Amino acid sequence: MSVELEQTLQELKERVGKLEIGTKDQLSMVVFSGDLDKILAAMIISTGAAAYDMKVKLFFTFWAISALRDPKKTAKGKNFIEKMFGIMLPKGAGKVKLSNMNMGGMGTAMIKGIMKKHKVASLPEMFKSAGELGVEINICEMSMNLMGFKKEEMIDYPGLTICGVGTFLSDAQESKIQLFI
Amino acid sequence: MSVELEQTLQELKERVGKLEIGTKDQLSMVVFSGDLDKILAAMIISTGAAAYDMKVKLFFTFWAISALRDPKKTAKGKNFIEKMFGIMLPKGAGKVKLSNMNMGGMGTAMIKGIMKKHKVASLPEMFKSAGELGVEINICEMSMNLMGFKKEEMIDYPGLTICGVGTFLSDAQESKIQLFI
Amino acid sequence: MSVELEQTLQELKERVGKLEIGTKDQLSMVVFSGDLDKILAAMIISTGAAAYDMKVKLFFTFWAISALRDPKKTAKGKNFIEKMFGIMLPKGAGKVKLSNMNMGGMGTAMIKGIMKKHKVASLPEMFKSAGELGVEINICEMSMNLMGFKKEEMIDYPGLTICGVGTFLSDAQESKIQLFI
Repeated sequence: MSVELEQTLQELKERVGKLEIGTKDQLSMVVFSGDLDKILAAMIISTGAAAYDMKVKLFFTFWAISALRDPKKTAKGKNFIEKMFGIMLPKGAGKVKLSNMNMGGMGTAMIKGIMKKHKVASLPEMFKSAGELGVEINICEMSMNLMGFKKEEMIDYPGLTICGVGTFLSDAQESKIQLFI
Repeated sequence: MSVELEQTLQELKERVGKLEIGTKDQLSMVVFSGDLDKILAAMIISTGAAAYDMKVKLFFTFWAISALRDPKKTAKGKNFIEKMFGIMLPKGAGKVKLSNMNMGGMGTAMIKGIMKKHKVASLPEMFKSAGELGVEINICEMSMNLMGFKKEEMIDYPGLTICGVGTFLSDAQESKIQLFI
Repeated sequence: MSVELEQTLQELKERVGKLEIGTKDQLSMVVFSGDLDKILAAMIISTGAAAYDMKVKLFFTFWAISALRDPKKTAKGKNFIEKMFGIMLPKGAGKVKLSNMNMGGMGTAMIKGIMKKHKVASLPEMFKSAGELGVEINICEMSMNLMGFKKEEMIDYPGLTICGVGTFLSDAQESKIQLFI
């Protein structure tokens, strides 16, 4: 091959390589909502994608973090405002409510009953499956600080990490699919 | 051409071909919300994209399915809970409400009046246009089962299909744009 | 090089070039929600992305436009309905409320206090940074017309443009990341 041709091919290979990195078979999702129905949707999409061998990276922020609280754990050294947040926000995946038709908890209970009847996994069970399927969960550091949550209050989840929005952005840049829920 | 060179070119072509499949001029959207304003946004984006010759694939799930109910149709063989859902959830695109400023229906009526005055299509009209423009609508099978909805209660829409989240995921993997509304 | 080889290479280069245009290091976002928490999330992601040298293009529509109103500006020539909207919708980034736990404004005030204490920029400050970082803000023309908002009521923001959904779609088609908030 001529030197010129080799250079052209090398350059093309590099450009194609960059494109491949930027369109990995990966799903990145911001999970923002604290509503049972939306977090269920996020976890159904995530476990579905992981079952199809996609790499899945979730970034839990704001209200959604409540669903990752472990009701059996507590953290020390909180100030008054942080304790208030702890009391006002739902304590774990078993406590989050529907965005719609909650009707004082009756709608939420009804949906949970129907899900059980139809053998759809509950939210805590979905977190368990997600962990087994290798779904990566990151929690937004800024939100943790604002709400006074600490890592030791969160559920046991393989590889659970506290990090900044930069992590979401660099994951999303490489992903084929990005969603904000 | 040398054998080595042909192999290199063939390999590059295949990699580029794969990238092209993964970045089709296609828009995939999860339509989750049951709010008039959000479904309007979804349909404005969808019909806009279809008018620009993009392929559009929508996946209606949870609350959004209510907007696809045909108020003139009924389904038989429902149990008590399924009948309850049928009564509590809005029956069709003409009945869904604003997420905000609904004010007992007054805000929703006001927005509809203004849309008419400005000659913006109503939600039922937008579904009609979407069908004509070839926007594909899929409905989430799991949500249909949970809420006890049946296909025969849904609007007449060209190619309307009931399917699983896997369909959304494989569509989204090939799409340039993915949104969750 | 042979003519045949040159053609093959030329064709490959063109296909790779098209793929590169379609996966620019660019973030396109529909900002639809009028809630303080969601617009904060949108602006944190946007300024983060811009700080990482991504091009960021926002399309403000529906309720989110309220956050771009300048409380010190007014517009003339509004009809009754348009004046009503002006009064009912929040007047600027300082007035938008939490989607959750607003509790008559107490929750919103609490969050703002905590953000200040943790030295997180307020929403008006974030708009300022976004402008300096070159984040592009477009406003949905149809929403402006429906709500009777005029450009002269909006904040001073570098390059602020009123345009249609087509602009969002063509930006999104070229972007690596697209979100709907």
